[in-house]
Amino acid sequence: MKLYSYWRSSSSWRVRIALNLKGVRYEYAAVHLGRDGGAQNTPEYREKNPLRTVPLLEWEEGGKVHRLSQSMAILAYLEERWPEPALWPKDPLKKAQVWMLAEIPNSSIQPLQNLAVSKQVGAAGGDGNAWSKHWNERGLEALEAWAKPLAGQFLVGDQVSAADVCLIPQLYSARRFGVDLAAFPTLTRVEKACEALDAFARARPERQPDAES
Amino acid sequence: MKLYSYWRSSSSWRVRIALNLKGVRYEYAAVHLGRDGGAQNTPEYREKNPLRTVPLLEWEEGGKVHRLSQSMAILAYLEERWPEPALWPKDPLKKAQVWMLAEIPNSSIQPLQNLAVSKQVGAAGGDGNAWSKHWNERGLEALEAWAKPLAGQFLVGDQVSAADVCLIPQLYSARRFGVDLAAFPTLTRVEKACEALDAFARARPERQPDAES
Repeated sequence: MKLYSYWRSSSSWRVRIALNLKGVRYEYAAVHLGRDGGAQNTPEYREKNPLRTVPLLEWEEGGKVHRLSQSMAILAYLEERWPEPALWPKDPLKKAQVWMLAEIPNSSIQPLQNLAVSKQVGAAGGDGNAWSKHWNERGLEALEAWAKPLAGQFLVGDQVSAADVCLIPQLYSARRFGVDLAAFPTLTRVEKACEALDAFARARPERQPDAES
Repeated sequence: MKLYSYWRSSSSWRVRIALNLKGVRYEYAAVHLGRDGGAQNTPEYREKNPLRTVPLLEWEEGGKVHRLSQSMAILAYLEERWPEPALWPKDPLKKAQVWMLAEIPNSSIQPLQNLAVSKQVGAAGGDGNAWSKHWNERGLEALEAWAKPLAGQFLVGDQVSAADVCLIPQLYSARRFGVDLAAFPTLTRVEKACEALDAFARARPERQPDAES
């Protein structure tokens, strides 16, 4: 497995956590999203991923090269190929709750605060940082409210799930944009429990080969 | 099952298609996203869904009221409860490809062009319609490229999947923002195949109880 990733990309980070949790060894291919107009915009990379995003998972199988984009699709694939430890509970309702809590960062926070978007906001005369902070606050407020009655040691009960995998990178982004996390006690409590796990620790941006100081 | 929906919400539309495909009867609860500051912002609705979005699925079971937000989480739940007809193929790779093509509208297009976001762009001095058009074009270009080698009669092979469920509402939005769809022959061909199905036809905005002329 080869993972096209950028150290500070929160969506790539999710996949790194999942690969670590499942004990899948992978090759790290750095894609610098900022330098020289962004390596994701080169013809070579667009050929691999027309959406020009990371993460991208690539592997050979049956003599063919396969590629998957979109972090949630990659997580769902890893779950099928390496079912243990499971990132989704078996119970249909709990499973759906994990999807819901994972999708709040995935579709209601991260897309609105990624680099390409905040640049466009700046180009339109707005304040990119204030914009990103706003969507983080709005989304995390909802995530805290949804998670409060569902959380145990982790976001949904006492097992690590795809929801936790999406939470940790989002909290890192929120801090970067100046969000005060004191209002989200459930989320920060779960963050502490995740941080104690080696699979989460090894996935952190500063521990990636393309990390910058 | 009670579905909180807005006729022109593309995320609600996805759930309506899935409920129709699976033959699940449901009660339609209209949430007017625009009028009087938006019904999604009332304390009553925020109590049900702190993210202040539609769709929201609500049902009683075992003496408890359950609620699910996030269209992809709702689709995943419907798939568990009513497995047939399946919205995801059994094969792990094909299943992941369906997730990928579904997640392009879900996390890389729709979040960037919804009403709350384009309003914020307008408030920041930008052009909300041009903004929404841009993200639709960028995302659909990638979706067309990914789908071309995977599509049969539908987006992934010859069976309707969650990817088609997400595609149809997105193409409607794209047209509203003035996107020329001629560059996306795979997507518009699949759209025609979906439109021929009654489950898709009944889910269209203009056929909902809260439709406006």
